[in-house]
Amino acid sequence: MKKFMDEDFLLNSETAVRLYHDYAEKLPIIDYHCHINPMEIYEDRRFENITEVWLGGDHYKWRLMRANGVQEHYITGDADPKEKFRQWARTLPKAIGNPIYHWSHLELKRYFGYDGILNEQTADEVWELTLRKLKEPFLSARNIIVSSGVTVICTTDTPTDSLAWHKKIAADKSFKVKVLPTFRPDKALNIEKPDFTDFIDSLSMLNGIPVYSFATLCDALKERMDYFSELGCVISDHALSYVMYEPAPEAVVEEIYRKRIRGVIPDAREQLVYKTALMMFLGREYSNRGWIMQLHYGALRDNNTPMYKTLGSDTGFDCIDNYSLSAGLSAFLNALEKTGQLPRTIVYSLNPVDNAYIDTVIGCFQDSSIPGKLQHGAAWWFNDHKAGLMEHLTSLASCGLLSNFIGMLTDSRSFLSYTRHEYFRRILCDMLGGMVEAGEYPEDYEALKSIVQDISYYNAARYIKAI
Amino acid sequence: MKKFMDEDFLLNSETAVRLYHDYAEKLPIIDYHCHINPMEIYEDRRFENITEVWLGGDHYKWRLMRANGVQEHYITGDADPKEKFRQWARTLPKAIGNPIYHWSHLELKRYFGYDGILNEQTADEVWELTLRKLKEPFLSARNIIVSSGVTVICTTDTPTDSLAWHKKIAADKSFKVKVLPTFRPDKALNIEKPDFTDFIDSLSMLNGIPVYSFATLCDALKERMDYFSELGCVISDHALSYVMYEPAPEAVVEEIYRKRIRGVIPDAREQLVYKTALMMFLGREYSNRGWIMQLHYGALRDNNTPMYKTLGSDTGFDCIDNYSLSAGLSAFLNALEKTGQLPRTIVYSLNPVDNAYIDTVIGCFQDSSIPGKLQHGAAWWFNDHKAGLMEHLTSLASCGLLSNFIGMLTDSRSFLSYTRHEYFRRILCDMLGGMVEAGEYPEDYEALKSIVQDISYYNAARYIKAI
Amino acid sequence: MKKFMDEDFLLNSETAVRLYHDYAEKLPIIDYHCHINPMEIYEDRRFENITEVWLGGDHYKWRLMRANGVQEHYITGDADPKEKFRQWARTLPKAIGNPIYHWSHLELKRYFGYDGILNEQTADEVWELTLRKLKEPFLSARNIIVSSGVTVICTTDTPTDSLAWHKKIAADKSFKVKVLPTFRPDKALNIEKPDFTDFIDSLSMLNGIPVYSFATLCDALKERMDYFSELGCVISDHALSYVMYEPAPEAVVEEIYRKRIRGVIPDAREQLVYKTALMMFLGREYSNRGWIMQLHYGALRDNNTPMYKTLGSDTGFDCIDNYSLSAGLSAFLNALEKTGQLPRTIVYSLNPVDNAYIDTVIGCFQDSSIPGKLQHGAAWWFNDHKAGLMEHLTSLASCGLLSNFIGMLTDSRSFLSYTRHEYFRRILCDMLGGMVEAGEYPEDYEALKSIVQDISYYNAARYIKAI
Repeated sequence: MKKFMDEDFLLNSETAVRLYHDYAEKLPIIDYHCHINPMEIYEDRRFENITEVWLGGDHYKWRLMRANGVQEHYITGDADPKEKFRQWARTLPKAIGNPIYHWSHLELKRYFGYDGILNEQTADEVWELTLRKLKEPFLSARNIIVSSGVTVICTTDTPTDSLAWHKKIAADKSFKVKVLPTFRPDKALNIEKPDFTDFIDSLSMLNGIPVYSFATLCDALKERMDYFSELGCVISDHALSYVMYEPAPEAVVEEIYRKRIRGVIPDAREQLVYKTALMMFLGREYSNRGWIMQLHYGALRDNNTPMYKTLGSDTGFDCIDNYSLSAGLSAFLNALEKTGQLPRTIVYSLNPVDNAYIDTVIGCFQDSSIPGKLQHGAAWWFNDHKAGLMEHLTSLASCGLLSNFIGMLTDSRSFLSYTRHEYFRRILCDMLGGMVEAGEYPEDYEALKSIVQDISYYNAARYIKAI
Repeated sequence: MKKFMDEDFLLNSETAVRLYHDYAEKLPIIDYHCHINPMEIYEDRRFENITEVWLGGDHYKWRLMRANGVQEHYITGDADPKEKFRQWARTLPKAIGNPIYHWSHLELKRYFGYDGILNEQTADEVWELTLRKLKEPFLSARNIIVSSGVTVICTTDTPTDSLAWHKKIAADKSFKVKVLPTFRPDKALNIEKPDFTDFIDSLSMLNGIPVYSFATLCDALKERMDYFSELGCVISDHALSYVMYEPAPEAVVEEIYRKRIRGVIPDAREQLVYKTALMMFLGREYSNRGWIMQLHYGALRDNNTPMYKTLGSDTGFDCIDNYSLSAGLSAFLNALEKTGQLPRTIVYSLNPVDNAYIDTVIGCFQDSSIPGKLQHGAAWWFNDHKAGLMEHLTSLASCGLLSNFIGMLTDSRSFLSYTRHEYFRRILCDMLGGMVEAGEYPEDYEALKSIVQDISYYNAARYIKAI
Repeated sequence: MKKFMDEDFLLNSETAVRLYHDYAEKLPIIDYHCHINPMEIYEDRRFENITEVWLGGDHYKWRLMRANGVQEHYITGDADPKEKFRQWARTLPKAIGNPIYHWSHLELKRYFGYDGILNEQTADEVWELTLRKLKEPFLSARNIIVSSGVTVICTTDTPTDSLAWHKKIAADKSFKVKVLPTFRPDKALNIEKPDFTDFIDSLSMLNGIPVYSFATLCDALKERMDYFSELGCVISDHALSYVMYEPAPEAVVEEIYRKRIRGVIPDAREQLVYKTALMMFLGREYSNRGWIMQLHYGALRDNNTPMYKTLGSDTGFDCIDNYSLSAGLSAFLNALEKTGQLPRTIVYSLNPVDNAYIDTVIGCFQDSSIPGKLQHGAAWWFNDHKAGLMEHLTSLASCGLLSNFIGMLTDSRSFLSYTRHEYFRRILCDMLGGMVEAGEYPEDYEALKSIVQDISYYNAARYIKAI
């Protein structure tokens, strides 16, 4: 019987223990994909209480509370924060086998020094402890980042963002962590959405030139990319339903765009044509700039209309979409490759059954520009639990070179979520240690050290050119 | 080396042993979904021999015999029962890793007190033993049910069923087990089937009112639901190819219905429109009545035409259908949610690759009416083997709250299949015990007791309002 | 800690050790599906150096080198063989968890007697050793085959092949191994390909009769089947995108064929109609001849156009295609079954998520002609790693009779790849041994011996009627 979440948590062999503690534990963190608000970093945000930290915006936790029959009043409503926390504490013990059970306890350990178990009985004790600790300087946003060993943070930003906070952070020489913007032009892609023209209007105003055509849209986005580049942007990001490839002549694309500007929503095929054209343009731009392209696909969002009307998006009503054809992903990457303009690319699917096919698609586009040019991104969102992380790593190792994987990211809005890197590194070391103990990989600690450290830190650092 | 299927079968740690024997083993069983014939309960059916019990209608076993090259004569033909049993005994040792290997031996242990291994050598010994035991009173249908600890049985019934046997059972005060009907209106849904109009005719006659329109169909089904309610029905069930959502105005639906009554089979899209409309009507009715809606989808049936012509349906010629879009499931549930009429719902897919997406879809519709209002039903049919049960539980735990799961059911025609609940509970306890031993969940036996007992019994009891 | 890849590699229990060494290890090999060049067997090919053996045509290894950022010059280019080998040695340690890591070391052990680890440091040592050993007689093509215990090899051949080398091998009485052709008429199926008419021309010339119609095509293929039969062919093979079933009247098929002969590429639906008709014809012919039908589907090929233009097909740019409907597979098999002309059939999908559905589809068509008439082929190509092999075996065991499985094949162009049979047998024995140790199957060594030996050798031997 192992002690509950002790220093060897998730490390089930002596080799795993050694790999983690000797090689992985103390490495810095490059959080190359997250949703942290840069203003909160600049302003060094502080938190009133643990409810604000944990339940203020974390829809992972909201979902579990709803699944436990907790009333919305205690989730996103205006109930007393302490009552909300109690409802969470009552829910958590039921989350056996859920990563949030582990993350919550890791966060209590690492940031609040609490080694107990959070449940209904200990809720008040934890509330008081965290209340006290949150007043201490080390639990400000910046101090959490620094004490977690984070050296680079890539936020997620819309092309029209002023990046004012990124500028201010960069100008503040007292804070050494790089906080870089990520170019995420979803609003430019989503031609079917009602707010598409609002976005086009903002873009027009920002550049002082009306974006009246597909060609001017491309120009305007180029200007924004230049601006993002100035502030250190090296990564783009896309949220797609699925990766499509429906090429058409420029004139057709222009016609679709102008139709939309006139207020007519293009039909399904036209949307694909437009998105394909814009993704091709963007992919080539990323390649020209040496940027990384991230493709996130497979989410079906806002499934619960009444709750969407009340709470809006990103409130815990999304699910896995199982529609995706590997042929589209492959054809899109190939179309960029044909002109030598395929950027470094990271592919993430929300559907875990895509693991093997992504691992084999990326294998078709690797080249000598950098080891692991094409990446299968870490188990994403609903999949970043122990089983999901292991399946992702196993598939990657089985179909390609695990050693070149750029590793974990938080994908989070929370400053406490850096423990997810710890969670990942432990699982990685346990898997590798297990192979060694089973005689499936030699007890060659030099090779193992490289593999562990590369996946934990160095691959990401090299990939985003941070070292 | 563990002994073959001893008292700690499937329990691979001390904690697992403790969880099972202390908490799960002796709890009653609520078999909320099965295909038991209520007449056989009322008449307290007895069995001539083990062939009648095991091979009389169990197409799981027939499939294995066919896969072993056994002639149909010894499977569904008129061979001597003892010869059939010998063929089965010859097949069974080849079923290494198959749940039927375990179920068969559990049934021999629990109901016949046979602790040996069934194979060609022991076939005659087992034949004689079971022949003798089947004459004893404790192996009547009712006594098996009672001695298995079953307190509630939900059968599966077509809307036109008279429910005569359910009435008689309810009237028999000597039998305390609740035997409740389940409303399964597949015949009303399957507008493309040749026997659709026969069903409509029966329904017309039963109510004395011609079901000439979609509206009158709805009225007629309502009457049947009222009747089912009187006899304690709290659950409905649907076998769908996949969960569709293709809404259309009432007039369109009426037109499709009337066309079909005139003998014209609607085209594929019209079928979807009709089914969507009827499912919406039914879902709302279930909600109004506080019934549970079960959605079983993903089976492709009667794939072998020559055998279908000889033996009919449910004879072992079905397979997994891999066509299903999560968007349909989500849109259908949302359509009911929009008017606040989404009933408690249990979703089952025959395709195990749907696990993660079902677990995330149900997470979008949970509310405070009851913990775990939406459920991902237990690993179904081809998936209720050890690996399948573990994958289902792991996915559920990873993406939601395992603790609120309503647990196992037999889905069976056989009175001996209650050992499947034992099989499930052992696997559950092994998984939870393993987490505790690995330090992934605290050794908090109060919490663990709740979780184990809730999943084994209390969640189902609360869900069907049996307690 | 187990020693790295010692005699008990992959065998994690005493029972597993016993099953492998006592029952599996020394059995002969029937390699019923491979891509060995029969000319190389006849000529008893010898190899200059390990680069020629390993990197001459093995696109599995090429992919890993590309994923490691190695320049194409060192992969398929004209770099010095020793330099290429060094690049491979530098890549291999990064392939932790990849089957090629294990296969490579198994090949070094079994054929070169090298027990060390291949990496950058040992590259030169291994180069020298293998250079020396390759000069010895036991490393000729024929001697490798014989010393590996191979008794039957089924190559893969296009219908127009002269089979000259098969004839010569058969005539050479000094070589006892059966080298049989496999009938693989992909070129006859792929009506959409530019080289279709070239194939038709070759076929016309070969038979001296113009293949001007679908009916004459069928006749011509029949003649080729007769010819293949004379040389011992008992197996056919098909590479399909997916298994389709789109029947149409003969006249329609004829029209499509004639259109193509006139140079018009049929549209997508017409292609399906043509392929369905030809597959039906072929399936029936296979059945009449007692041949086996292999269906390989789910590969998306030549995804990287620039590399395809440089290197052609089968050079490491293929991936998993995730488009496939179980309904097509089932309908096609059923169409053959309807007239009693379904041959013994082996189904392979490149997409591992198809495991369960294939296992349930084949269960619908088993009969008493032979145990396991329908087979789910061994984990194919991207899936023949440890996790993939285990998933395949687990699914097969869970949904059917594992004991009747015909087991492993190499699917390889390399003479050293027979160690894949060893790899498979170890994993099989580990899985079965694990079940016994866990008390999930009795310690009945007679039954276990049968199961292990049948899957390792006898089932395949009986299936291809080699014994």
